[in-house]
Amino acid sequence: MRRLLLALIFAATSLPATAADDIVLRGMGSFHVGGRLVEISGRPVREIQLGAGGVPARMDPNGLYQVEQMYVQYFLPKSRKGRLPLLMWHGGGLTGATYETTPDGREGWLNLFIRKGWDVYVSDAVERGRSGFASRDIWTSEPNFLTTANPFERFRIGLGAGSWNADPNKRRAPPDTQFPLEAYDNFVKQIVPRWLDTDEAVIAAYTALVDKVCPCVLLVHSQGGLFGFKVAQARPDKVKALVAVEPAIPGDKDKAAAVKSVPMLMMFGDYIPQDARWPKMRQQDLDYADAVRAAGGTVDVVNLPEVGIKGNSHMLMMDKNNAVTADLIHKWLAGRGLVER
Amino acid sequence: MRRLLLALIFAATSLPATAADDIVLRGMGSFHVGGRLVEISGRPVREIQLGAGGVPARMDPNGLYQVEQMYVQYFLPKSRKGRLPLLMWHGGGLTGATYETTPDGREGWLNLFIRKGWDVYVSDAVERGRSGFASRDIWTSEPNFLTTANPFERFRIGLGAGSWNADPNKRRAPPDTQFPLEAYDNFVKQIVPRWLDTDEAVIAAYTALVDKVCPCVLLVHSQGGLFGFKVAQARPDKVKALVAVEPAIPGDKDKAAAVKSVPMLMMFGDYIPQDARWPKMRQQDLDYADAVRAAGGTVDVVNLPEVGIKGNSHMLMMDKNNAVTADLIHKWLAGRGLVER
Repeated sequence: MRRLLLALIFAATSLPATAADDIVLRGMGSFHVGGRLVEISGRPVREIQLGAGGVPARMDPNGLYQVEQMYVQYFLPKSRKGRLPLLMWHGGGLTGATYETTPDGREGWLNLFIRKGWDVYVSDAVERGRSGFASRDIWTSEPNFLTTANPFERFRIGLGAGSWNADPNKRRAPPDTQFPLEAYDNFVKQIVPRWLDTDEAVIAAYTALVDKVCPCVLLVHSQGGLFGFKVAQARPDKVKALVAVEPAIPGDKDKAAAVKSVPMLMMFGDYIPQDARWPKMRQQDLDYADAVRAAGGTVDVVNLPEVGIKGNSHMLMMDKNNAVTADLIHKWLAGRGLVER
Repeated sequence: MRRLLLALIFAATSLPATAADDIVLRGMGSFHVGGRLVEISGRPVREIQLGAGGVPARMDPNGLYQVEQMYVQYFLPKSRKGRLPLLMWHGGGLTGATYETTPDGREGWLNLFIRKGWDVYVSDAVERGRSGFASRDIWTSEPNFLTTANPFERFRIGLGAGSWNADPNKRRAPPDTQFPLEAYDNFVKQIVPRWLDTDEAVIAAYTALVDKVCPCVLLVHSQGGLFGFKVAQARPDKVKALVAVEPAIPGDKDKAAAVKSVPMLMMFGDYIPQDARWPKMRQQDLDYADAVRAAGGTVDVVNLPEVGIKGNSHMLMMDKNNAVTADLIHKWLAGRGLVER
């Protein structure tokens, strides 16, 4: 059954598209969704100077604040093939830039899926990027910052703890890695601070997005996995397929029945057995997949090395073979009837 | 002379383009530029849980941090008419989203200038949006947050202090305002925190951008004015024209000679005499313009109400007549020989 599925994935026709082709859009734009208003009172008024040489402005910190909204940018190809909007949700400590140009300057999944004919919506989760963040009057915890070493050692780009070095020539990585190692320092520039207790606000904003633009397909990565599964649980009528790329945290097993109508694809890259945390994380995902199947749902799991696609890090969408993995996802969606023939 | 200039602006041909046309791009993507590495040491290692249900991760806060880089997104129309890249720099407390879809869902200057044939580069200044921000170990000051009332009263959307109200029906605004009042609460969702002492880092990153993609034209707004003038001073060979839309702070008068080769357009909206701060801010800009002219440079100043374009707030690029002001800028650039005939 699993072998049959994979054969189908690889047999499906792909749309010819190269970076040399123009991108023809019937529309593009952005908006913010969700969020809430919070009142702050009893704080002193200050006079501040907005930049050296500026005219002083009176800043009254009391009043209403808009917080926890989410930024979304969309691109609508003229030649639409995907039957539904494709929403791309990034991982922890990152923004929608994850899906744009790769750190070494190639086209990312955003461009590749636009070229395949999908209406693509890329968002910055609450607290990140163009979604902004709330003051410490409202979010009382501190954000977390990643060192340049951290993602190298934790995202299976290098060989785990201690493999990063300030000298790029002394970094230890798998010899066959698909990650563009020479551009690692560019990748680090994409990282933004993250809070550890904003899940509820993030899920509320993603739910608002789904209510606005769906029915749709969700494509989620890493921390975005948790958000994707939770929103699919809450809106199974609107999420028509869920592609979870190395989800860091699965959905709720005891709510697996809620998503039985949502076909799911879980995709995992290489080097998981050698990693300190990923064997357990993948196992949690697989246990969830079993629970969804037991409830009558469909979850296809692709471990890329098992189908001959080797060398992928946790950041599959920017690995050198990102066109191959994009094709695989597109074909799986085509197999679900979500691509026009 | 001034009347002649304005006649020229309005006589120049414009390119026909409507929102109904497709946008045809020969490329689109994003990158980060600039920034620096900062070493943090002597802090305790923590074990944290990245989301409820996640596998704990060891977080060592010591090490190198990438900070003060800047995010840039670009769109390259197939039918290129602008002779140079057009860089759009936003104002304080905002991000590049300023130039995208307007809060009431119309096309912003980004789309309008792509349609006019300009390669457009939209950035998020250091500390904002997808550029991220540094920890309090590195930036020791606190960010500043704006209430929902603040921009209404300070950006000449409403009638100054006290004109905002939580009830949209009780907000006091000029009856002929071009700002889409009904979408004001959407506009507030674009606002992000700002620091008050990061100018140096912002200018360094913008300079890195200019070094990467210019010669070019800068289109700057509000706080971005300061950055545009400073970078033009530093790179007058690379900035071939500077459009300053309501610059909040001008350049250095004693360095006016440095920018004498950079043609400049300053554009101001309506309601300035009635505002508490804008008469002084505009006067500072005009004094700077005089200094640049005295040094042999060219600065054209357009007060929109004086040329019959009335009702503009500080947020001209999202006002209802944003296509009119975009045309005016495009024609001024055409008059500088920067648009292919």
